[in-house]
Amino acid sequence: MNDNGGRRRRDGVGIPDEGYGPGEEYDNGKERGMAGEDEVESIEKIFASQEVPSWKSQLTFRAFAVSLLLSVAFSFIVMKLNLTTGIIPSLNVAAGLLGYFFVKTWTSLFSRFVAVPFTRQENTVIQTCVVASSGIAFSGGFGSYLFAMSDTLATGPDANVFKNPSLSWIIGFLFLVSFLGLLSVVPLRKIMIVDFKLTYPSGTATAYLINSFHTPKGAKLAKKQVKELGKFFSISFLWAFFKWFFGGGKDCGFDAFPTFGLEAHEKRFYFDFSATYVGVGMICPYIINISVLVGGIISWGLMWPLIEKRAGEWWDPMAAKIEDMRGIKGYMVFLGIALILGDGLYNFLKVLSITLHAMYQQFRKRENVLPVASDSSPESSERSFDEQRRTQMFLKDQIPYWFAITGYVALAALATGLLPTIFPQLKWYYVLVIYIIAPPLAFCNAYGCGLTDWSLASTYGKLAIFLIGAWAGSAHGGIIAGLAACGVMMNIVSTASDLTQDFKTGYLTLASPRSMFISQVIGTAMGCVISPCVFWIFYKAFKDFGVEKSAYPVPYATIYRSMARVGVEGFSSLPKNCLNLCYGFFAAAIVINGIRDLAGKKRARFIPIPMAMAIPFYIGSYFAIDMCLGSLILFLWERVNKAKADAFAPAVASGLICGEGIWSLPSSVIALAGVKPPICMKFLSRATNERVDAFLNPGS
Amino acid sequence: MNDNGGRRRRDGVGIPDEGYGPGEEYDNGKERGMAGEDEVESIEKIFASQEVPSWKSQLTFRAFAVSLLLSVAFSFIVMKLNLTTGIIPSLNVAAGLLGYFFVKTWTSLFSRFVAVPFTRQENTVIQTCVVASSGIAFSGGFGSYLFAMSDTLATGPDANVFKNPSLSWIIGFLFLVSFLGLLSVVPLRKIMIVDFKLTYPSGTATAYLINSFHTPKGAKLAKKQVKELGKFFSISFLWAFFKWFFGGGKDCGFDAFPTFGLEAHEKRFYFDFSATYVGVGMICPYIINISVLVGGIISWGLMWPLIEKRAGEWWDPMAAKIEDMRGIKGYMVFLGIALILGDGLYNFLKVLSITLHAMYQQFRKRENVLPVASDSSPESSERSFDEQRRTQMFLKDQIPYWFAITGYVALAALATGLLPTIFPQLKWYYVLVIYIIAPPLAFCNAYGCGLTDWSLASTYGKLAIFLIGAWAGSAHGGIIAGLAACGVMMNIVSTASDLTQDFKTGYLTLASPRSMFISQVIGTAMGCVISPCVFWIFYKAFKDFGVEKSAYPVPYATIYRSMARVGVEGFSSLPKNCLNLCYGFFAAAIVINGIRDLAGKKRARFIPIPMAMAIPFYIGSYFAIDMCLGSLILFLWERVNKAKADAFAPAVASGLICGEGIWSLPSSVIALAGVKPPICMKFLSRATNERVDAFLNPGS
Repeated sequence: MNDNGGRRRRDGVGIPDEGYGPGEEYDNGKERGMAGEDEVESIEKIFASQEVPSWKSQLTFRAFAVSLLLSVAFSFIVMKLNLTTGIIPSLNVAAGLLGYFFVKTWTSLFSRFVAVPFTRQENTVIQTCVVASSGIAFSGGFGSYLFAMSDTLATGPDANVFKNPSLSWIIGFLFLVSFLGLLSVVPLRKIMIVDFKLTYPSGTATAYLINSFHTPKGAKLAKKQVKELGKFFSISFLWAFFKWFFGGGKDCGFDAFPTFGLEAHEKRFYFDFSATYVGVGMICPYIINISVLVGGIISWGLMWPLIEKRAGEWWDPMAAKIEDMRGIKGYMVFLGIALILGDGLYNFLKVLSITLHAMYQQFRKRENVLPVASDSSPESSERSFDEQRRTQMFLKDQIPYWFAITGYVALAALATGLLPTIFPQLKWYYVLVIYIIAPPLAFCNAYGCGLTDWSLASTYGKLAIFLIGAWAGSAHGGIIAGLAACGVMMNIVSTASDLTQDFKTGYLTLASPRSMFISQVIGTAMGCVISPCVFWIFYKAFKDFGVEKSAYPVPYATIYRSMARVGVEGFSSLPKNCLNLCYGFFAAAIVINGIRDLAGKKRARFIPIPMAMAIPFYIGSYFAIDMCLGSLILFLWERVNKAKADAFAPAVASGLICGEGIWSLPSSVIALAGVKPPICMKFLSRATNERVDAFLNPGS
Repeated sequence: MNDNGGRRRRDGVGIPDEGYGPGEEYDNGKERGMAGEDEVESIEKIFASQEVPSWKSQLTFRAFAVSLLLSVAFSFIVMKLNLTTGIIPSLNVAAGLLGYFFVKTWTSLFSRFVAVPFTRQENTVIQTCVVASSGIAFSGGFGSYLFAMSDTLATGPDANVFKNPSLSWIIGFLFLVSFLGLLSVVPLRKIMIVDFKLTYPSGTATAYLINSFHTPKGAKLAKKQVKELGKFFSISFLWAFFKWFFGGGKDCGFDAFPTFGLEAHEKRFYFDFSATYVGVGMICPYIINISVLVGGIISWGLMWPLIEKRAGEWWDPMAAKIEDMRGIKGYMVFLGIALILGDGLYNFLKVLSITLHAMYQQFRKRENVLPVASDSSPESSERSFDEQRRTQMFLKDQIPYWFAITGYVALAALATGLLPTIFPQLKWYYVLVIYIIAPPLAFCNAYGCGLTDWSLASTYGKLAIFLIGAWAGSAHGGIIAGLAACGVMMNIVSTASDLTQDFKTGYLTLASPRSMFISQVIGTAMGCVISPCVFWIFYKAFKDFGVEKSAYPVPYATIYRSMARVGVEGFSSLPKNCLNLCYGFFAAAIVINGIRDLAGKKRARFIPIPMAMAIPFYIGSYFAIDMCLGSLILFLWERVNKAKADAFAPAVASGLICGEGIWSLPSSVIALAGVKPPICMKFLSRATNERVDAFLNPGS
């Protein structure tokens, strides 16, 4: 799961989640219907008869055409999720299936002209291109640091500190910062995958998925899965289309449906009939969904009503009118941040200590065995045939080190010179400092991700907010400087772990590193153009974009801006007792995480995850209802037919997510054209309704 | 199907429908998961080891306790259907299953005290008691002739001709007229079942259902079916409960949901989220559902808009304000009546000619073989063991003829004397005439029903409306006289066919005729008290009871009153061109029916049934959407898993029907207590919504 608040799990993961310990992920990935290792003796023996195409012939035109199509689609989906709740589940099953489906369609359509068969290497190339491209929809910060700069969120004393989004500078910014991470990966590649033999659970799961598609049995299952995905895609799309008609006005439509009563709706506790988040709930582990719900109940059901009663005592209702964060919203945002930071710190230290310990052992023993999680690693010494063949292919097409290092230095110099022209507050020496400390952080993140499947990119980003923000200070526009620094940092660190994962996939599918690198470059370039454009469509199409309670509240932008403000101004801007509560929540997050780790895998299943609990603090728990419904459906399905649920639930969930996600494309086009929904489904209390009826029919 | 417009099919039928030819029904009944004849060689050989209990021990206390419970439940369900659309599907699967379930529960609860095993005879006794009791909810005319007398529907020149419902006179009236039919059956019993060996498809299907429950294999299936029924009962009940919250005002709630847009909703074309009618759609044959939809589209989509344009030319908008039937509503009601009467006449003549032909052959040959449909009869000469045993048991406990005849004469005399005290307009000689011509009509109806499974009770009732209405004339309150006469006639004729069906069931399950007769007497007595009380709850609980577009529009009451008015006043009260159109529709109904019969079974499946088409003419086609959805679900289910759909669809459908039906019990209690739903789900056009928003928030 990618929630802008915490760790970033890359798209290549079979099942996204939070809070699993090292080595657990992969089991889970197998459980949910991936073609597991134990099904076959040696995968490469199955493929032995097939010749591995040269790196150039892995880069076909059709691969990039399909990648472009999927990139646009996935950018819309990721962007929509970014802007609504910030929870982004893994779309890798969807990407894998759809990539396979489109190329298969392509080959059958043009079978007369094209004789080149569709190989798993080509499939990997598409996968990595789409991941690189749609990854920018996330790491571009449209739902977090980038939109946090806009004047929509600039209130109170910082009202004049803003930089509004504009297509030109966003694209320029992304081109400047996105390729650096890519180059920083090149030297890590061999160390992480061949020498250290890191697990990279997501990358491994994706590889098995792709490998399975290209076996006859796997192809049959894939076809069925594509059918299910298509079915639920249509249902979800049509449902979103149907819902659209009833949203003709403020507080209208299915988002306003008070499933549990009007009062519960006011506390943002309702079912909003969103197929997307039902699908998200089906993909996410049960504990995530329960955590979100628990967090929503604790915050909106218990804490906010109590704090609301302290109006005038703890917080000043008059001051809150001028500046949101001085009122109850301050508690909502900062208590959430406290949980996120506590959870982030705990896991940062945990992953760092695992990483350092593993590296220490690695260097001491100088052996080619993975020290941690070696028993759960799919590669063991017996499978020497697979390993030999993979290593051989992986080392064939090298990317020269001098190229990567020169490229990095040149790009860093360029960015150092040009970034201050985009953000005058971001001095060139801030950028230089970031680029000097970034490579070791990128290395740490790639290594940690290889072990635990957790990317801590957004944690490193938050670090940059506080550091650079405090360094710049409020007088020199520290908020913008901090947020921009966050973007620079996040892009490098996030790309480093993402693309190393992809290299693991490539390693396991015998894709050439050189073709993957080129695919990543093309994908990143695509993403730098597509993502800002997609964002621009949303930004222009919806009037109350970024406004609380609207269709696109962009919750993490508010959270990021508040963090930047605290970094610059210190805690003086918080309402009374907020800081004390924050300390409590920060500590609680660390304690809960500690208990989770001490309790053991079995009992940890019942302990909520602080990070997930923090999400509804600000936006409310309506999406938690959707997600729990998804959990419930999956639970019942597994009870009725476990085998079928395992095989098809990821496809069904992906269909549900993608259908409504893609609807945001026509819906924003319609909105841009000025067409509004014709009907308003309104929910009034009986008393209000009587007044309205009297107003509408004065005669009767 | 019982639609107050036409034939009345009794509750004992496996699958209710309209427009099947003689002999077709039973096949259908088997098709839908009844334990068919061909599954076993001889049913009675299976049961040979079980001793048949004496007639007195078939009448257990628990049987009547369960009957009472089910009678109340089914009266609510039937009444609700009566008052909403007038379409009443067969609830016999539900009655059979629930009867079985409750007695099984009873025996397991009290197994310490009661040692009497649950026999199929006892099951039949419950079945006939519930049918007799809940049948009165239909034949009592609460949705047709009886409520047609109330002042709610008295408009225009007849505004002063009304008799409002009141518990006391309704119960008295029902006690006077309901037992006569029961007595008229007694002499018919042996002739119809033993001598003529009539098929009685519904009765036969019910018997096979009951027989199957008491075999080990059948009991296992029955248990599963009960589980499914219970599941969908709960879903339907909870859904109705959930819907309730949103109906806090006029034009509020799910009934106001403009699924196909606001304009379509104004033309009463929408999905009203009623689980009941989705269930009804699953039980009714596809052609019924399609016919209803076609009828709705033709009338509301085509004819009414065209006629509406003729305002001022064809009909006078000013006159329509004073008296509904002078306006567009006149066309709606009378074109529907024309179709119903045309269909009724055609089928009356058809069934009558089949009946007469069969009787002629019967008497000429004096043979014990069923002349018509003998090949489809489940009894054939080979199965002599079953037949011998059944006939022997059937003739064991006779009810003396003198008892039946004396009873009939005594009751008729009583009714002749007392009915005019309830309805002063209904002179004693009208009643006498009805009681003299009733027995041959009852005989015809029982015979026709035995052959074709169609009861023409409501057709005979309409005959009485016109005859007695015209005889009495408008000056002497002919409308009330006609409607009351309709009630007297319908009760005898309907009971005669219903209970003969039940005797067929008893014949096939070896239930004693004497125990069945006593059960019917008790059931009828129960019904005479329960039904009026249930009606009274609805009548008192819902404010706009009987008003068009309300939750309980009682559509057939309007239709019956309009028929009575025409009977009394002639056609002068109709708007311009209405009569000509009526002639056309009357003829069309006959022609379409003729084509259906000539086209053969295969092609007739695609020709709509006029009777079903007439239903939405007045009330709109919203319930047709529900029913077609039910069809669609069944169709898809059958495509996915035919065996499972056949076995469980009737149980699922019954669950859906009963759940929402039973919700009307607490819902009316809540309404009586003055509790109103808290929320209004309102649907406004965008423009109206903007006005409302400005009204509600004058500041913003």
